[in-house]
Amino acid sequence: MNVVERSARRWATELAAVRRDADPGVVAFARAVLGTAAEPGDGVLGRVIAALGAVGAAEALLERNPAERLAAAVGEAAGDLDERETATGLERWLPRLDSDGFVRTLTQATRVGARFLVPEDPEWPAGVDELGIHAPIGLWVRGRLGALSRAGQARSIALVGARAATGYGEHVAMESAAGLVDRGFAIISGGAYGIDGMAHRAALASDGSTVAFLAGGVDRFYPMGHEALLSRIVDSGAVVSELPCGAAPTKWRFLQRNRLIAASSDATVVLEAGIRSGSLNTAGHAAALGRPLGAVPGPVTSPASAGCHRLLREFDAVCVVDADQMAELAGGPGGRGGSQSSEQSAPSGHDSTSSGGRIADAPPEVTRVLDALSTRAPRELADVARRAGLSTTEVMAVLGDLDANGVVTRRPDGWRRRRTS
Amino acid sequence: MNVVERSARRWATELAAVRRDADPGVVAFARAVLGTAAEPGDGVLGRVIAALGAVGAAEALLERNPAERLAAAVGEAAGDLDERETATGLERWLPRLDSDGFVRTLTQATRVGARFLVPEDPEWPAGVDELGIHAPIGLWVRGRLGALSRAGQARSIALVGARAATGYGEHVAMESAAGLVDRGFAIISGGAYGIDGMAHRAALASDGSTVAFLAGGVDRFYPMGHEALLSRIVDSGAVVSELPCGAAPTKWRFLQRNRLIAASSDATVVLEAGIRSGSLNTAGHAAALGRPLGAVPGPVTSPASAGCHRLLREFDAVCVVDADQMAELAGGPGGRGGSQSSEQSAPSGHDSTSSGGRIADAPPEVTRVLDALSTRAPRELADVARRAGLSTTEVMAVLGDLDANGVVTRRPDGWRRRRTS
Repeated sequence: MNVVERSARRWATELAAVRRDADPGVVAFARAVLGTAAEPGDGVLGRVIAALGAVGAAEALLERNPAERLAAAVGEAAGDLDERETATGLERWLPRLDSDGFVRTLTQATRVGARFLVPEDPEWPAGVDELGIHAPIGLWVRGRLGALSRAGQARSIALVGARAATGYGEHVAMESAAGLVDRGFAIISGGAYGIDGMAHRAALASDGSTVAFLAGGVDRFYPMGHEALLSRIVDSGAVVSELPCGAAPTKWRFLQRNRLIAASSDATVVLEAGIRSGSLNTAGHAAALGRPLGAVPGPVTSPASAGCHRLLREFDAVCVVDADQMAELAGGPGGRGGSQSSEQSAPSGHDSTSSGGRIADAPPEVTRVLDALSTRAPRELADVARRAGLSTTEVMAVLGDLDANGVVTRRPDGWRRRRTS
Repeated sequence: MNVVERSARRWATELAAVRRDADPGVVAFARAVLGTAAEPGDGVLGRVIAALGAVGAAEALLERNPAERLAAAVGEAAGDLDERETATGLERWLPRLDSDGFVRTLTQATRVGARFLVPEDPEWPAGVDELGIHAPIGLWVRGRLGALSRAGQARSIALVGARAATGYGEHVAMESAAGLVDRGFAIISGGAYGIDGMAHRAALASDGSTVAFLAGGVDRFYPMGHEALLSRIVDSGAVVSELPCGAAPTKWRFLQRNRLIAASSDATVVLEAGIRSGSLNTAGHAAALGRPLGAVPGPVTSPASAGCHRLLREFDAVCVVDADQMAELAGGPGGRGGSQSSEQSAPSGHDSTSSGGRIADAPPEVTRVLDALSTRAPRELADVARRAGLSTTEVMAVLGDLDANGVVTRRPDGWRRRRTS
């Protein structure tokens, strides 16, 4: 009997003893164990947890014969899973159950002050549950536990983008994050160099709440160059990961981390991203979840914005150019009026008109009468009508309105348009 | 009996004499007369022409008692019009019938070599007929009559934008027009300063066909600063207007001119436009006609691109960043493959993955196995599986593929990832 088997048996006994109490501590313990067994987003484990509960799933994994135990339990649960799947799952999970490693993880978490959030906690970010069987099993949090919860923060928005940011992208990130904090939003991002870092920094500078999701354990800040920044985020927001302490970031974990950024926010906005930026993956998660997705355009001559343009072109991302539009995208109270506000009306079709100049969206007759008037020479009604291609009746009606508004004046020798500044 | 009445009677006699012959010259004559009577886009006259034909409509207007004549004719045509409308129409049109002015117009047209195109001509641009009762009555053309016809040119695209263009906008206009000419498109625009002028110039520089629609008569080029440019367009394309020679450009005529730019093109693209640019009116016409509408994004910090962003945000314009995408928008053969081409796949949701790096869109297992391998230390199969969170069976399948593709190597002591440049 090796270390794993011994520990597994000890864990199982412990779990079995307290199972019926549904002790919150036991649920958290079970989820922490399961979180070390699987890579993020393991849908088979998600289904096992859905069928057996976290404690039941952990118990099953820690049995002497987990395959038999799982098969029976899954059978009872009226099979959303088949045996083949659970067998493959066990092949994945069992080799990673390591009680010594688990103790090291917990010790390290304690050392850095990380706490473990589970769906049963009031601070749990409700949005991530929409990931269904791909939802995180638990979240390790350094900082304010409530930074992610709806209760703690009215609204949150994910601001993401490429590490290879330009001055333009950094400017946009600064302005956007500051403007959204002013409108009461928490800023969620990935703590990376470039756009992510700028969004976090601007949020902190505006005394806002900001949350960084990491792809590895929260005990080691990644990237290393952002150690100071991430420490400041811990002080006034939170640094979060579904990976246990000690876990290294990998490409897979970055991709899965992205789903948490999208799922825990009310909207995702890509501020600047090249055609291969990882932030497009975050955008894909937001779209898959049916969350609002925005993209900030940039110069078409800048490859650093090509990913944003692709989102606009191919993935129905909404074009957003400032914090107001981003707030509106997220449906927040900070959005100042709808984008289709009457202040700016639609470009007109050929049945109506909009001017390109001073008098926006004047009715056709008004445009034509103004065209027909001079600011110098007064013109007779009939002359104005002929020039405008309108009947004198139509022209009289328009002139009456324009006169009332001080746009034209009537002289004994006809009508004249007033000079306007 | 004044000049108008005398001329009207003479014209009417002339028209009546030849009406049954449907002489193309008479049709053109009738349309030229009607074109002087109404402002562009007069829908009532459009309906009269639809009911009576151009010759019938001109005859009616030139009768001694046109109201009676129209009422009778409209009654016969089973009333798409009512008497009130035609009465107002006559009030508009009759004061502008002026045979001396008409003769001056024709003389001037002859002098500058302008010819008059009517819908019956093979060179007529079919697209403008989709304007229905707002279609132009005729078009005055200087240059190649065939420049607008489908026969003469495979495809055409309208490139429009603000007069107040930036260096960025001018660069985009140059690149777009040149690229579209290379793909066989004619470039249609409004001959204005800024974006329009740049689009024309680039088309000429690439030996392409280009057409400028003016808001006044084609005998006087507007703006005056573009006299040389418009003369060059006459030499290798066409300068076109629905207004007779001698007609001054007015705001109303600019707005109506825009409908012709949109209607005579396969697609309209706004290259750079502020929030109040007249080119948004052209975009509105394209949208109203159901024609493809594109907008080129720019820096959100540039007010000169705010109109383009508004089109993307509020009016479902397609984001286009280069000539390829514009050609595709217009459905031309120059478009190199669909935008949803397999070359660039979708940003993935949480059920799949896309990498942000070298190996784009690798399946999840591949990403995870690569994550689990080192380029330095070879690793045993079980170790790779545990690190990847996969079963050994799953890992073996992936390693087999990666080995075949030269991405990994097998050593006696395990698997190693190859270094790639």
